[in-house]
Amino acid sequence: MPSDKSFHMTPEDFRRHGHEVVDWLADYFTRIESFPVLSRAEPGQIRTSLPLEPPAQGEPFQAMLQDVEKLILPGITHWQSPNFFAYFPSNNSGASILGDLLSSGLGVQGMLWATSPACTELETHVLDWLGQMLDLPPKFLSTDTGGGVIQDTASSASLCALLAARERATNFASNKRGCDGKLAAYTSSQAHSSIEKAVQIAGLGRDSLRLIEVHANFAMRPDALAQRIQEDRQNGLIPCFVCATVGTTSSNAIDPVPEIGRICRGQNIWLHVDAAMSGTAALCPEFRHIHNGLEFADSYCFNPHKWMFTNFDCDCFYVADRKGLIQTLSVLPEYLKNKATETGAVIDYRDWQIPLGRRFRSLKLWFVIRHYGVQGLQHHVREHVRLAQQFAEWLKQDAEFELAAPVPLNLVCFRHKGGDQINQDLMDRLNRSGDLYLTHTRLNDRLTLRFCVGQTNTQERHVRRAWDRIRQEARAVWVGRATQA
Amino acid sequence: MPSDKSFHMTPEDFRRHGHEVVDWLADYFTRIESFPVLSRAEPGQIRTSLPLEPPAQGEPFQAMLQDVEKLILPGITHWQSPNFFAYFPSNNSGASILGDLLSSGLGVQGMLWATSPACTELETHVLDWLGQMLDLPPKFLSTDTGGGVIQDTASSASLCALLAARERATNFASNKRGCDGKLAAYTSSQAHSSIEKAVQIAGLGRDSLRLIEVHANFAMRPDALAQRIQEDRQNGLIPCFVCATVGTTSSNAIDPVPEIGRICRGQNIWLHVDAAMSGTAALCPEFRHIHNGLEFADSYCFNPHKWMFTNFDCDCFYVADRKGLIQTLSVLPEYLKNKATETGAVIDYRDWQIPLGRRFRSLKLWFVIRHYGVQGLQHHVREHVRLAQQFAEWLKQDAEFELAAPVPLNLVCFRHKGGDQINQDLMDRLNRSGDLYLTHTRLNDRLTLRFCVGQTNTQERHVRRAWDRIRQEARAVWVGRATQA
Repeated sequence: MPSDKSFHMTPEDFRRHGHEVVDWLADYFTRIESFPVLSRAEPGQIRTSLPLEPPAQGEPFQAMLQDVEKLILPGITHWQSPNFFAYFPSNNSGASILGDLLSSGLGVQGMLWATSPACTELETHVLDWLGQMLDLPPKFLSTDTGGGVIQDTASSASLCALLAARERATNFASNKRGCDGKLAAYTSSQAHSSIEKAVQIAGLGRDSLRLIEVHANFAMRPDALAQRIQEDRQNGLIPCFVCATVGTTSSNAIDPVPEIGRICRGQNIWLHVDAAMSGTAALCPEFRHIHNGLEFADSYCFNPHKWMFTNFDCDCFYVADRKGLIQTLSVLPEYLKNKATETGAVIDYRDWQIPLGRRFRSLKLWFVIRHYGVQGLQHHVREHVRLAQQFAEWLKQDAEFELAAPVPLNLVCFRHKGGDQINQDLMDRLNRSGDLYLTHTRLNDRLTLRFCVGQTNTQERHVRRAWDRIRQEARAVWVGRATQA
Repeated sequence: MPSDKSFHMTPEDFRRHGHEVVDWLADYFTRIESFPVLSRAEPGQIRTSLPLEPPAQGEPFQAMLQDVEKLILPGITHWQSPNFFAYFPSNNSGASILGDLLSSGLGVQGMLWATSPACTELETHVLDWLGQMLDLPPKFLSTDTGGGVIQDTASSASLCALLAARERATNFASNKRGCDGKLAAYTSSQAHSSIEKAVQIAGLGRDSLRLIEVHANFAMRPDALAQRIQEDRQNGLIPCFVCATVGTTSSNAIDPVPEIGRICRGQNIWLHVDAAMSGTAALCPEFRHIHNGLEFADSYCFNPHKWMFTNFDCDCFYVADRKGLIQTLSVLPEYLKNKATETGAVIDYRDWQIPLGRRFRSLKLWFVIRHYGVQGLQHHVREHVRLAQQFAEWLKQDAEFELAAPVPLNLVCFRHKGGDQINQDLMDRLNRSGDLYLTHTRLNDRLTLRFCVGQTNTQERHVRRAWDRIRQEARAVWVGRATQA
């Protein structure tokens, strides 16, 4: 077949369709509040609207864009709506989207320094910037013994930290000989599920993970940690990894990192600090206390894709000793050997992560930091915290509701005093209404609603309306039950 | 601080800057052949051009775009240049970039069905389409017992497969109790380094990985596999995982999957088939023989982000028994519980992968399939294979060069007959020239050049010029050495 027939989009067609997509997105941002935040799609609804067979011939671009509007939008839960208060946010910004567009378009694969030096060096540089911006201990910077790398998620960062810890505790024998049931790992009962998943993946086994008890504020009890480590040592086990959480998913509890860190240092145990959500707050000096104790940590991560206007995926993972991480994750086949790597003068980020390939993710982060500037980022973080604290104040003053946990930053855990069923009904009604979206957890075995302020465009009016809607629906639930009874 | 000051980009600013970025990319595609394919940046060059401190105040968007042009482009290795013949490609297309832009802009996080039903259902649907397009055994479809999921890379897919295999072989005890040094895994000596990495990560240990010998064509020897499995069983080990490769990285060797599959089935061992690069060829009926034996496989993956015009990251991973995979990777904390999940009527893809969060990657894949249609994709795959075969023919007719391995599809392994140093010099000169980029491997302990035709816009003229340049530089190397001697 001759090569003169091409199905590729020409640069001029790309220009035209690119403008159409940008325009569609700009319009989407303008009308985003008109959609129900939580999708109302029924299971299977989207699939049944799609053809069973893939098209034999190409379709016009307009057909795809129309289907995004008609078929996909009804199945979208609008994470970028200012009325999104569920989970932790996964916020976004124009600067980030456009930085990411450049990454998609340039299409470089940065597994090695040599496969795109700018991809590696910009990442190292921007992560050093962020280290300064969060005032991380210097050991986490590339100019010292450590350095940062972008991972897809905090789950992957925690797994990498655990693997490096596993290797260090076994004198770098676990990669070679495998696990032998002797290692133990520690985190609080409130830690993210990814720690349990990591311990399973890494072959330690869930039985070797100690879920340490928490104080009434849901933060880890260092005395319980110390005791458990001692017991394990007495039983011949090798404690290798502690994960402290700065801002737990359930309630934003902040583990006492200084006390935990001193225990880890005394026992030569790897300390990983998971600040996936809350780390961003340390951009502001007044919240930087959440990082107290980081000087004891071996690794640290936080997610600009949660609360720093950088679209998913972007987790920033730092280690204090990059050599240990690289030694853990490096496998060097012939086809990846190259002169730059052999000189040792460059970073090959494939040795800092699970996958081999990687996209140019630092572009979007660079764009975000430069678009907002440090002060712009600080402004919005402060504003989110202020709004959450405001919401907590309103709650405290309402006799029907109670706070379920301290509110250190931008997550408010609360409940209606009427019990679990009322809270379940309240949440379901609110989410079904489409006006806002919030999710739940259980604290002290009671259903608890979570209200997290972190979406890029959330302003006071959105929080105020959410509070009005919560009270309104709570009354409706209450009246409904009275009528039933 | 009042909330009336916002640093966010307005929708109208996004529209304007979005057009600018699209225009910049359209121009980049037009002039891409004017850049040296392999970046000439020296280690540290990009970093030293960047400010040491992050900006305190936001900068105009134009400043960022100008810096991409001025500071970043010189540090880019142009993976999207039609003169890129290195590694395996990571090809791209306008349709994919724009689908990905929608994903970045919508900013949904599809960890659960409920967090964006369309994100999950479109992915399931498009992966079923692809299953049909590649004529995969029906068991790999979601309408049967299996299903597909998008992973970041084949490395992660292989790790997930290994974990599911580990669980199945231990009656689902390895997640709980950890590894105990009893498991063994198998792949060929030519398999991708990610298999060794996966075995390390999963706690089996590299010592438990058998690198099975290959035939002269670099494909795994089933007899050697069977023998090694038998020895391990006799020594009390539990063979749990075999990875066969369809298209090895070094030389594109295709393991004999039917024979390997029969051994695995007879021994109840999980068979994973890694077709990361070459799987795409099965779009064309005439190449579909590479998938012979897939009926014996438990899992399979291939990468549209390599050779199907879908920008990184996009690996399609299929399992025959989704229940086993989900049981392996599911951890369900309270804060992720929801009604849709409880009904069991939906897929929650967080249980099909290592990370929790995930972006809406099926949009770009959907756009690619619809833009090209099956026939358009087939056309370009055929054309790439034709060009590689053409290149191989030219080589065979040149007395100075020899083929170093069979050429089943679009990768040509070859060498100058003058020995390793000549080939090293030849490669260095070619890559330094900026006219094209190719990489090397070692086959039978001899330096071997790899020439892979798979970049989206590579046409006959690019391959022809590459061959001219190769011969030209080979003569220059030869003359240079004669002069030195």
